[in-house]
Order: sequence, then structure tokens, then C-alpha cells
Amino acid sequence: MSYFQNVGKVKFEGANSSNPFAFKYYNPEEQINGKSMEDFLRFGVSYWHTFVGEGTDPFGAGTAVRPYDKFSGMDLAKARVEASFEFFEKMDVPYFCFHDIDIAPETDSLSETFNNLDEIVAMIKEYMKTSKVKLLWNTANAFTHPRWLFGAATAPNADVFAYAAARVKKGLEVGKELGAENYVFWGGREGYETLLNTDMKLEQDNLARFFHMAKSYAKEIGFDAQFLIEPKPKEPTKHQYDFDVATGIAFLRTYGLEDVFKFNIEANHATLAGHTFEHELHLARINGMLGSVDANQGDTLLGWDTDEFPTDLYSTTLAMYEILKNDGLGTGGLNFDAKVRRGSFDTDDLFHAHIAGMDSFAIGTKVAKRLLDDRVLEDFIADRYSSYNEGIGKDIVEGNTDFHKLADHALKVDVISNNKSGRQEYLKQTLNKYILEALQQG
Amino acid sequence: MSYFQNVGKVKFEGANSSNPFAFKYYNPEEQINGKSMEDFLRFGVSYWHTFVGEGTDPFGAGTAVRPYDKFSGMDLAKARVEASFEFFEKMDVPYFCFHDIDIAPETDSLSETFNNLDEIVAMIKEYMKTSKVKLLWNTANAFTHPRWLFGAATAPNADVFAYAAARVKKGLEVGKELGAENYVFWGGREGYETLLNTDMKLEQDNLARFFHMAKSYAKEIGFDAQFLIEPKPKEPTKHQYDFDVATGIAFLRTYGLEDVFKFNIEANHATLAGHTFEHELHLARINGMLGSVDANQGDTLLGWDTDEFPTDLYSTTLAMYEILKNDGLGTGGLNFDAKVRRGSFDTDDLFHAHIAGMDSFAIGTKVAKRLLDDRVLEDFIADRYSSYNEGIGKDIVEGNTDFHKLADHALKVDVISNNKSGRQEYLKQTLNKYILEALQQG
Amino acid sequence: MSYFQNVGKVKFEGANSSNPFAFKYYNPEEQINGKSMEDFLRFGVSYWHTFVGEGTDPFGAGTAVRPYDKFSGMDLAKARVEASFEFFEKMDVPYFCFHDIDIAPETDSLSETFNNLDEIVAMIKEYMKTSKVKLLWNTANAFTHPRWLFGAATAPNADVFAYAAARVKKGLEVGKELGAENYVFWGGREGYETLLNTDMKLEQDNLARFFHMAKSYAKEIGFDAQFLIEPKPKEPTKHQYDFDVATGIAFLRTYGLEDVFKFNIEANHATLAGHTFEHELHLARINGMLGSVDANQGDTLLGWDTDEFPTDLYSTTLAMYEILKNDGLGTGGLNFDAKVRRGSFDTDDLFHAHIAGMDSFAIGTKVAKRLLDDRVLEDFIADRYSSYNEGIGKDIVEGNTDFHKLADHALKVDVISNNKSGRQEYLKQTLNKYILEALQQG
Amino acid sequence: MSYFQNVGKVKFEGANSSNPFAFKYYNPEEQINGKSMEDFLRFGVSYWHTFVGEGTDPFGAGTAVRPYDKFSGMDLAKARVEASFEFFEKMDVPYFCFHDIDIAPETDSLSETFNNLDEIVAMIKEYMKTSKVKLLWNTANAFTHPRWLFGAATAPNADVFAYAAARVKKGLEVGKELGAENYVFWGGREGYETLLNTDMKLEQDNLARFFHMAKSYAKEIGFDAQFLIEPKPKEPTKHQYDFDVATGIAFLRTYGLEDVFKFNIEANHATLAGHTFEHELHLARINGMLGSVDANQGDTLLGWDTDEFPTDLYSTTLAMYEILKNDGLGTGGLNFDAKVRRGSFDTDDLFHAHIAGMDSFAIGTKVAKRLLDDRVLEDFIADRYSSYNEGIGKDIVEGNTDFHKLADHALKVDVISNNKSGRQEYLKQTLNKYILEALQQG
Repeated sequence: MSYFQNVGKVKFEGANSSNPFAFKYYNPEEQINGKSMEDFLRFGVSYWHTFVGEGTDPFGAGTAVRPYDKFSGMDLAKARVEASFEFFEKMDVPYFCFHDIDIAPETDSLSETFNNLDEIVAMIKEYMKTSKVKLLWNTANAFTHPRWLFGAATAPNADVFAYAAARVKKGLEVGKELGAENYVFWGGREGYETLLNTDMKLEQDNLARFFHMAKSYAKEIGFDAQFLIEPKPKEPTKHQYDFDVATGIAFLRTYGLEDVFKFNIEANHATLAGHTFEHELHLARINGMLGSVDANQGDTLLGWDTDEFPTDLYSTTLAMYEILKNDGLGTGGLNFDAKVRRGSFDTDDLFHAHIAGMDSFAIGTKVAKRLLDDRVLEDFIADRYSSYNEGIGKDIVEGNTDFHKLADHALKVDVISNNKSGRQEYLKQTLNKYILEALQQG
Repeated sequence: MSYFQNVGKVKFEGANSSNPFAFKYYNPEEQINGKSMEDFLRFGVSYWHTFVGEGTDPFGAGTAVRPYDKFSGMDLAKARVEASFEFFEKMDVPYFCFHDIDIAPETDSLSETFNNLDEIVAMIKEYMKTSKVKLLWNTANAFTHPRWLFGAATAPNADVFAYAAARVKKGLEVGKELGAENYVFWGGREGYETLLNTDMKLEQDNLARFFHMAKSYAKEIGFDAQFLIEPKPKEPTKHQYDFDVATGIAFLRTYGLEDVFKFNIEANHATLAGHTFEHELHLARINGMLGSVDANQGDTLLGWDTDEFPTDLYSTTLAMYEILKNDGLGTGGLNFDAKVRRGSFDTDDLFHAHIAGMDSFAIGTKVAKRLLDDRVLEDFIADRYSSYNEGIGKDIVEGNTDFHKLADHALKVDVISNNKSGRQEYLKQTLNKYILEALQQG
Repeated sequence: MSYFQNVGKVKFEGANSSNPFAFKYYNPEEQINGKSMEDFLRFGVSYWHTFVGEGTDPFGAGTAVRPYDKFSGMDLAKARVEASFEFFEKMDVPYFCFHDIDIAPETDSLSETFNNLDEIVAMIKEYMKTSKVKLLWNTANAFTHPRWLFGAATAPNADVFAYAAARVKKGLEVGKELGAENYVFWGGREGYETLLNTDMKLEQDNLARFFHMAKSYAKEIGFDAQFLIEPKPKEPTKHQYDFDVATGIAFLRTYGLEDVFKFNIEANHATLAGHTFEHELHLARINGMLGSVDANQGDTLLGWDTDEFPTDLYSTTLAMYEILKNDGLGTGGLNFDAKVRRGSFDTDDLFHAHIAGMDSFAIGTKVAKRLLDDRVLEDFIADRYSSYNEGIGKDIVEGNTDFHKLADHALKVDVISNNKSGRQEYLKQTLNKYILEALQQG
Repeated sequence: MSYFQNVGKVKFEGANSSNPFAFKYYNPEEQINGKSMEDFLRFGVSYWHTFVGEGTDPFGAGTAVRPYDKFSGMDLAKARVEASFEFFEKMDVPYFCFHDIDIAPETDSLSETFNNLDEIVAMIKEYMKTSKVKLLWNTANAFTHPRWLFGAATAPNADVFAYAAARVKKGLEVGKELGAENYVFWGGREGYETLLNTDMKLEQDNLARFFHMAKSYAKEIGFDAQFLIEPKPKEPTKHQYDFDVATGIAFLRTYGLEDVFKFNIEANHATLAGHTFEHELHLARINGMLGSVDANQGDTLLGWDTDEFPTDLYSTTLAMYEILKNDGLGTGGLNFDAKVRRGSFDTDDLFHAHIAGMDSFAIGTKVAKRLLDDRVLEDFIADRYSSYNEGIGKDIVEGNTDFHKLADHALKVDVISNNKSGRQEYLKQTLNKYILEALQQG
């Protein structure tokens, strides 16, 4: 049986192809830095948006028309597994990601929920045997059910904390069972609505205790996936504790967790926090904590998480620039944490959207690689900071100076007259040139 | 000679006073937590806004009409000193704050600038002998002159780094000379305009090197003022490195500086970073890093730093709530880093504005104190988190549990049914009640 | 049977009352401008938030615990009617408001939906006979069901346009049947997601055609309610056509509808559009188009519609200032288009929240009235613009001048030296004084 | 004498050129819609940013290094004229734009200012005789000098109103003298800081009176330039009266000025108002009021006017799409109301920046033209709204229906099942394809 009869296997056909269901720019077999594009880009499909999302919004019911709409409960869960593997195969993606309750229905009862989960995990495991798709990461959804309304590991109710532990314990076991390469923590409710009723110190202490216990348990069961924190500043909370990468670093270092976690960075979360996507990637990178990416884009004129499929070539280029500088993402990947627009309600749109995202990152990769190969920015930067390679600059960098020597130097200089233009407009023009010439490269 | 003839010494006259130049709510002698209000609130006047600010904005020339407008150069600097001490006395404030170039004119030449500075510092020192006003903090302005266009301690030009060191070295000496209780670092240009030309890692490493050298030098000369970082997310930069308190903590911990610095928190900088003022105070407090406050307010419908005088009683109340929980600000104070609006251009407005700010913080203090005395929020919070006082909750807090025990507990509970309402609307109504009754309290 | 057993009839008990379910500041019988407060404030309860809302958010399921949760379908609809009239009585509010599908379940079928609606309307009519509560306004929900995904009167599908007409036709009939004093149009989907697929001109032309037909039909059936447009800039759409009051005026004047509509102004929609609440009220007022108010508040640090109950006394004061200047709202009222927070999930919170809102507007009314009685702002403004009462200013206002005369005058003046300070800080301090003294007034 | 010796005449050299001072994409002689690109794009240089701007920002002094820095007063003004004409010639631009005080120094005295202006206007007129450059528009700066602190035509001081009239009267005369094709009104101070001291009705009435008088005077002197309003929501004001295009339409229609004005639309002002650039262009276009463009770009993560040179190809493409749909801009043009970054401080950057902007608009034009030639969006839209071409849809558009007929139709349909996907992701992917292929087209 086929859930997506309209579309066959999506292949690379080149920019001239008029087939809307073909990759125009993403060639999985093309080589990049000694790997195939497929191995390098490690695209992942988000189970929740693509197979569970219904196209609701705060003012509207679901619009999505899906071939498994006729099912419900566990039957629906199973139909979604079938459909998902058909989709993975047709899109030829190497990875997928899920929250526990994406794959199996949650009930008020923990034991019942676990039973549902076990059944579907077994089914997925079976499907994975004959599929190339692997599990990039899994996680526990601790934000949708009403029980989490005040948080999970930061809940004011100790029973809820325990409940969250049980769910993450199970999540780690499921991750091990399915060979997940990472395990993600997104604290969607770990924050506050108002300080008037909040004990932030206790909540953050508890969150750290939770993470330490999670790490111990993963070690105990031999699950060596990379732990990832996914920063987000707000929504649904008024204020989320893992606001952005810097806030995450502060938290991890305060609680001795800096060696346990890397970051899963989402473009739309970056902009909600007032940063560019590339800023967050860059900051994680220079701190050795760039783990994985939730590849989407937001609308900076809107104040909420729009989770659009990534098509902005400036953004994909600058993101891939950071990722190439990082020598790739290690066990991480590019998970499309993106949903088709509510008005893109049929299954064709699922293909259009993933193709658009994969093609956009392929272009971004080509442009970024050529920028690096040509050392366009790197040489400019090396020259710009060259004063730190000798004399007083070298002393500064090597720690061979102090305020006495520096002040003496400055008084000798007395008037600064050697600053050089930052050439921002020229660099932006250069970036345009590289994007416009993307198709002219091998 | 008098610079402010319109206004005499500003005194507390009570809410019924019709004198616009009297405190209606701020009584310096009133007792709060065993201190006089004056000793507790430690108000400071910002030299730059009040005596140097001209009422310019990005689209307009200065509008301020000041009695020393006829002077220029060092004469102007000296007239400002005279005027400032008259103002301090009339407003009866205990503190003032300045950047080096607020008090003495800067030229392109470092040595010339230092000469100017030395002359005015000596004059201020003389004035301080017969005034009660003290120096809350001083700092070096490393952002106005064109030489700082790409930063000071994070400049791509090593000469500029050295120049910044010379200026801060001098600033520490001036601070010691005038008995400053704190020394502030605001990195207005320590950030970037575009990542395309930026080496963020080198810049942040250099910034840390700079701070370590500054601390060494302060120790060397026996200047034991508290070092303060003042976070701000952006403006004038596209992205400033000390974005907010959390980012500051990340930086300080990464570079082993967490014991050297506390934070100087500005209300308007908090909102530019997407936080409430009280959030930033709270976060600094629970990390033991709440140092001092730049008391102003922003306009959350505008995207830039408006530096308004603080009059929002919700904000002053919730700020003072954090400060009271912190047992005051130690060596810190409440510096009015606020400017009269461009349309409030005469000297009377300087008095109106400071009176408005001081009265607003006095009301905030009264309301916050009564909230604490009545344990209105504290009891609510204690009850809300009471599950951590016994059973599994106590085990969590005391570190006597793990994922096995927690999962067992959760499976026994199986269905969560004991969450309690957060009562946000009720708490906000209660806050209103306390504000409305502020005048009815002793 | 009682749905809200915890709470009895809510009465005015004064500021000293410790009863959390009493009005502390809102005394319905108090006189204001020759009317009772109740007649003046015309508070309305929003059926959707209070009886239908479940506490969902984009990342979470409903948390609300309601006494009628056990019912479904028409039984649920009927239980809600019963509960709502108990609530209206206990809160002693004079008005309520609803969308059609709030009161009766919508199905895919139009005829079925109408049947459901007819049954509940009859039931409500019966309840209204023995209740003092009246219908402030009703409206048709043309945004929740998937059929409206691209708009209703601006849909690219003519069948959907016709469907919307049928629903509004019914809405007008229901309004007449229940004696609604206004009829509201909120175009939640009348806008676009992307210009790439949008014919904005056709959509706006169609919207105007729709409005003209609606007016004709209302006239035909003798339904003389005031038509109201409710501006909102975005959410759920990327861009909504009735962005704000000014945009609404542009649309209405372009299509000859300026005499047909007034505005229903919502505080949270104002801030989403970048305006203060009072700005939107003011602009509508000076254009003679201030119709009614959706009384809530947003969180300006968040980018979405939070629909909080209004508790900010600055906002309620400045809103009531505009309403008093408008001689009240005519047939309009103050509808609490506000929802209890997701964490305020029990029925007590419904009472706490409405009490908080009503008390806050009562305080706002008292403060605004005393500001007006004392002519605090009015005299300041009259003086500030007094140059238009004589000489060249009078000539300008009376149209007795031209560029020749004005230029001659200006050349004679040559240098402007008579501007006067705007005194913003002093005025804000004055506003604080009036709020703080609210309880000291009769 | 040459002011810009580093750079020769900038010419089109094609994408492969390695000359940084050549157009890579903008070929003035290329044909577009029957005109040369130069005639079609009508680029203008902003005198203020390019020849007057000093690279100041709210926290920093000017950084710009200019060859005429050694001059001051009228000598500086004259040197700038010389430099500007050298720049116009080297950049080969057809237009420039200025505010009165950009070209001649303003003093406190009106008559003195006029004398300065007359002298420079004569000089410019002389230069224009031997230059191809023409005046796209001029305007009066009524926002920089302190006298305008509360507005010009909306000032509370009637003398200031008269002063503004004198300046605009002169501006119209200068425009006529130099052959300006448009006259712009940007009301940078026409708004308010706080409603507490503002009579908005009087201010807006006066603004309308001012515009009517300006039109009369232009007519009187036979100056038939197109009048343009330039909307901006805020900055420097808290709230500017010509917030956006829609607000402008409301104002113009309220005061009977809709036939007198078109709009000068600035990209950065659009985003500050919460709109895309293309939205504002589109709205003006469908109202027949698209007059001219201030071509720049903002940074949507910053809350102020950054006035960057336009390099975003999505934005230039979608802007040119609107302009092509408008059959060009008539007497309007593309004025680079953009400033080089503060860090781009040397004169080379002036060339880099203008080249980047012109190349970016050339690419945008090519992409937009091919999108239109291929009817990519137009056919999609035509199909999407095709239901309005027949049956009930045609009746709606032609005004042959009413709520009775529409409701009957809807009841017959009963269930909507014919909505079609909006295909946003597919359309965005298509837009990328067209941009990526820009260089492959003739």
C-alpha cells in the first residue's frame, strides 16, 4: 500500500529539471570535503511536524489532509509508521527524529503510555532493519500534556519531576534500542509565566539534578548518544530557562555539566532570542559545543515560532559556513524542525517543502565551501587582526604584558591613526556574488 | 554663583505638598530594614546625562538649555563640576557616577586627555571634601571617540587594545583617588556589526585577558572597588558580547572571572534583551552577582535605548523586591542612568525627573517591603513548592534518588492529579492592592 | 444545580475586605458622570474565553478544569449556557458577547450548524428573560474551521465567500433576536500568508462588497446594532487587512464605509501593531469612530496575543481617560476579551480574573475622572497650544493665511526662541500621584 | 581637482570582473521593458548620507574620513557640491536628492539660512548644466534643528508652523529652480512623544492645512512636481503620524488630499512598521499611489532605522516585481537613502556601497522581469482566484448578488470541499530558482 501515490522516489535531476518532485541542487552523491553530500549533510525528517502535525494554529483547527486521517489511536500510530518509512525512502533521507508521544499515543496513565510506546518502538525497529534511515535523535515530550503545565524537571510538584524522570529514562532506553546518535532535551515548559509565583533557584537546581541523573542512567545502560540542549527563549513560556546558547553555557558551567552537553540549535529559536542563526552556531562552535541543528526559518516580522522550511539562501549559506568551519556536525545532523504552512495542506506539500529545504542547504553548502576554499572571509579577517601576530599584539595574545606596559605603549602611540575600514558593504556584495554564481560551480 | 536658581533644596514634604520641587514619597530619614532610606537606596546621579547630555537624538541636534552653555573646553568642564555639586546638594543625593570623558574633555591625544582629566579630578576631589556626595562608580568611556569604532578590548587593532588598557588603568587610579566604591565596565563597542569580518573567539579571549589584567592592576594599587559588568544586548553594536546577565555569567565562568565581577543591571538594557528588569535582577541575585543598578526605564514599543527616568511603579516595586531579598546592594546603588526627554529641555526638568525617579523608588521600596513583611508571595511560593520538603521531593533536593527510584515512584503514581493553580491573576490583583495602599502605610 | 459552588454573589466590599471574591474597588452603584458605574462601564464577559476556552497553547493541550467537562456536543453547549448565566449573575455583569460557534457546536455542514445554533439561541433567549444580562455584541466565527484557511470574505474561493455571507446573515438574525447592541467583524483570516500567491486588490474589493451587503441586510431586517471592526495586525495571519485603527479608516474611507462602522479596540491588538492601547482609542475618538473595547492586556516582551486580564492601572487609567473624553462608549462596552492563564486552571480563577479586571477598570475610571475634573492634562495642553488662539496661530486654524503670509511672519520672527518644555517627567510623576491617591477619593 | 582619486568611472564589466569598482550586474544600457536600465531604474544618490553623513551614532562621534573634512561653513558646503558632482559622474547615476540643509549650512536665523541656500543652489544649478544628473526630489529638513523639537507643521507653537511654511515655500522654489521631479514630505517630528501633553486632533488638522497651502503655492509658482509623503512609524518620535502607507491613506482621504500625494516608500521604514518592503509597495500600488522609493534595507533584529545599502536579493526582487507591475515609478526613482556602516569609513566604501546597491537592484530587476515574463506567480494567482470568473463568484465581483442569494448558494453547497493548497513552499523554492538562474539569462 502507498500513502503518497502522487510522488515517486525523489532524485537529483539538476537545475533544468521541470519535475517539481526532483532535487534541482541537492545531489546526495556529490562529494564535499571528502564525503558524499548525503553523509555530510545528514538530513533528518521531524516525525512530529511531518506525520503528526495537523495544521492547527492558535485560532484554527487542523487543515492537513493526510492519507491516514481515517485511523485513530494505535491504528493511527501504526499507519503513521508505515507512511513515514515510505516518505523516508521516497525522499531518500538518512535520518529521522521523534518525541515519544509523536510515535505512540499518550494517555493520562504512565504505564499505559509505556505500553503503547513499546509496541510502536518494536514496529519501528522492524522497519529500520530494511531501511537505510537511522535515528538522529529522540526525546521525551514533556510539554504537551496538562500535567506539565508548570514544567517537568522544574515543576513545583515533585511527583511531576519523578514522572519526567520516568519518561526520560524510557526515552534513553528507546534511544539505545533504536540506535539514536543523540538525545535531545528541549525544556519547552522549563521556565516561568510570572516571577510572582516562582522559585527560580530551586527550579534550576532541580533541572541540573535531573540532567546529572539522566547522564548517570545513560552511562549505566551503555547509551553513549550525545546529549543535546535545544535553546529557546520563550513560547510557550513567558521565559524559558535555556534562552539561548550563551544562557545554556552559563547554566551548564554553573552546574558542572559543560562536558555532558552540546547544543541543538534551531534557526527560529535564534531569531526569537534576538540573534541570527549563524550567531548561535558560531557561539556554540567556538565553545566546542556545536552538536546538531534544527533546520528551519522564522519570520522576523512575527513574534512567534513559525517553524518554516528553510529556503533563505543567505541563512543556509552562513549556517553551512559555520558547520564547515566545525568540520561538520559529528553525530549531529540537519533535522527539518519545520512544518508546511497551514495553507499547504496536502501531501504534495510535504515533498515540496522537504525538497525546498534540502536544495536550499545544498546550495548553501556549495556557496560556503567555495567561500572557504577561496579564503574570501578568512583572508580578510586574518589581515584585519594581523596586529596580534607581532609586537604588542603578540604580547597581548601570549599573556606577556600588563597594564603598565600597555599604557606605556599607548602613551607612545598617543594618537590612534591606523584603523582600517571594516568593508561591510563590500563583503555583502561579495556574498551575493558567490550565491549568484552557485550554479556555475562544479 | 548658582546654576539652578529656580530651585532650592529639595525636601520631603509628603503626598499633599503642592510644591513641584519637593519629594512627596521619598523621605531620606525614614527607616527601612534598620537603615535610613538614604543609606538604603543609595541614589546616584549620572554625570553624563545630567550635566553633559545635550538632548540630541539620531535625527536632531541638542535642545538642552543649560546655564553653562556659554563655556567650552576646560572652562565648560569646570563649570559643570560647579553645577553638579550644586545639583547634588539641592537634590540631597548621596552618590554620583561618571565616565572619564564626562568630566574632562577628550582629545585625540592620550597624554593631553590625561592632563585634562588630572586637573578636573583634583577639582572634584576638592569639592568632595565639603560635600556629602560620594563616588558610586566611575568608568572609562571607550565607545564615543572614532578610535573605538571596532571595540576597545576587543578591537582588531592591538594599539587600540593598549590604548583601552591605558584608559582603564587611569580610570582605576582615578577611582582610587576619589574613593569609588565600584568600577564599571560597559562594553558598548565590544561586539560586532557583522560576523563576516569578525574573529569572535580572539575578541572574547582578549576581553578576558583585559579583565584579568585590570583586576591585577587594581590589586596592585590597592583599589578594592567591586568590579561590575553592565550587560546590554545591542545598540550601538549589532550584537554586544555582554548581551544580558546570563551571557555575562557564561563569559565570566568560561574565563575564570566569576569571582571578580558582579553585575550593574540597567532596566532598559534588560528589556532590549527581551527580559523584564526584575528577571535580570533575580538571575543575578540567585547567582550571588547582583552588584548595582542603573535605574531607568525603556519603552517596550520602541526598539532602542530610551533611558527614561523610572516612574513605573510596577517596575520599581518588583526591582526593590529583588533588592530587599538581596539584603540591599552592598557597595552598589541606584544610579539614574536616565536622561530627561529631548522635549524636557530646561533645568527645571532635571529636578522634576530626579524627584520623579526617587519618589517612584521610594514607593516601590515601601510596597516591596510590605509584600515581604506580609510574606504575600513568599508564603504562596513556599506552599507551591512544598512537595520538595518531604518524601520523593526531599530525596530529589537532597540528592538521594536516581532515575530508577523516580521511575518507580512515577509508575506508582501513574496519573498526575495534584497540580495546583498558579493564580497569576489573583497575584497581580494583590500586587495592585499593595501599590494602591502604599500611601496608607507608615 | 450550581456550577460554581465555591463562590457566591460577588459584591463590593471595599479595599479592606479580605474576601478574595469581592470587589475591592468596583462599586456598581457608585455614580460617575451622572450614571451608575455599572451603567457607565458596561462590562461584558467573553463567552469564548470563559466558557469555551480550555487552556490550550501552541505547545500544549487544555488544562482547564470545568464543571461541564463531562458533557459533549449539544449537551455541553447547553451546560455552558446554564453555567454562563450562573456566572453572569454571580459576577453581576450587565453584558456578554459571543461568536456563533462558541454557543453551539459547528459541524462541516452549514445547515446542521444552523440547526444547532437555533436551538441554543432559543435557550439563551429564554434565560435572558429572567436575567439582567444583555448581549453587548455577537459575531460569526469565520476563522477556526479549516474552510476559512485562506479567509472568509477575502477567500480565493467564491463558495467560501458565499458561506461567510450565510454565516453573517445568520449572525445578524441572531443579533436581532437576542437584542445585540453591536455586531462585530473580526477578520482573523482576512489577510495573507505570502504575497506570492495573493491578489490583495480583489480580496479587499470583495471585503468591501461583503460589508455593504451586510449593512443592507441588517437594514432590511431592521437590526440597527452598531457595526464594529476589530483591528488586529497579525496572528493568525502573517498580515491582517485591518491592521490597526488607521488602516481601518483607510479601508473604510476608500470604500465609502466610514459612516457604517466604528471600531472595537482591543488593548493587546494595539500593542501587537506597535501602538499603545490609548493611542488606538484616541485615534478612533478624534475620528468619531470609538465604538467599543475589548478589555485585556498583552505582554510587550512577547510577540503574540496573550489576551491577559487587564490589571495594569496605567493602561486602565489612560483608556478610561479616552472613554470619558468620548462621553462613554454609547452602545459599546468593556468586553473582557481575556483568558485566564493556562496555569490558572480552576474555576476560582475565572472569578479572580474578572474581579481583577473590573476592579482595575474601576480604579482607572476614578483616576481618569479626577484627572479630568482637575483639568490636570487639559489645562497643560490648552496652555501648550495657546499660540493657536490668536495672531498668526488663529489665522492658521481659521484658514486665513497662506505660504506668503506665513513666510513673511517667519522672516520677521527670524529666530525661534519661544518653545516651552514638554514636561514629560513631571506629567508622569503627576499621573503616579493620581493613581496613588485613588483610594483617598470619594 | 579630484576628491575621489582612488576610483575612476565605474562601468559595467560583467560578473567575471575582478575590479571591485565595476558594476558586475548593472548594465545601464541593457534594455528592460523598452527602456534602458538607466532610464528604468532611475537611481538617485542621497546627498545627506553620502556627502554630509559623518558616521555618528547615538553612542559615538563621526568616523567618516572625507576629502573635504578640512573645510567648514560655506567652504565645506561648496567642497561638497564639487565632490558630489564628481561622485555622480563617476558612479554614472542619473539622479540625486537633498534636504535644504544638506547643501547649505543652517543657522538659527531664517534669513541667513536662506542666503546660504541661495548661494549653493546657484552653484548646483551651474554644475547641473554640464552634468547629466538631475534632481529626483528635494525637501526641507524640519527635524534636526532644536526649534523643531515638537514638530514643524504639527508644532504646538504657531511661530514654528509659520517657520516651517517659510522653509517649504523656499523648498518648492528651489525645486522649481533646479527642476526637481518630485517634492518629498517626511514628517520626522510630526508625531508625539507622549499623549499626556498632546492635542493630536489639532496637530493633524494643522498638518492637513499645511499640505493644502503647500499645494496651492506649488500651483501658484507653476511647480508641478509630484508631492510625496514618506511614511515612517517612529524614530525619532515615539509615534509618527504618517506611520505607514495605510495610515497615510487614512490621513489623505480624511483631509481630501488623496489626489495630491503619492508615497515615497522606504524599505527600512516598512520593517519598522511591521511590514515587508514589498507589502508597502504593493499597498501603494493597488491604491494608485506608488510614487518613489527610498532604496535601503534594515536589520529586522534591531529596532531602529539602520539605513543599510540594499543587498538582499529577495527584497530587491520583490520590490522590483511591484515596480514592474506598476509600469515603473513615473517621475519617481530609486533613491539610496542608505549610509555606509560606521565602520566603513573611507571614501572607497561610498563606491562599494553604491555599486552593491545598484547591482542588487539590477539583479532584482532581471529576476522580477523573468518571473513576470514567465507568468510564474500571475498564472498561479489567476488559477487560485478563478472561481470569481464565473457563477456565484462572478456575481459577487459584478455586484449582482446579496446575502439572500449567497446564503442560498452556501446552503446548497453545505460542506466546503474545494479549497486548494496555497503552495507557499513550492513558490519560495521557485523564487530561489529564479534568483539562482539570474546570471544565466540574457
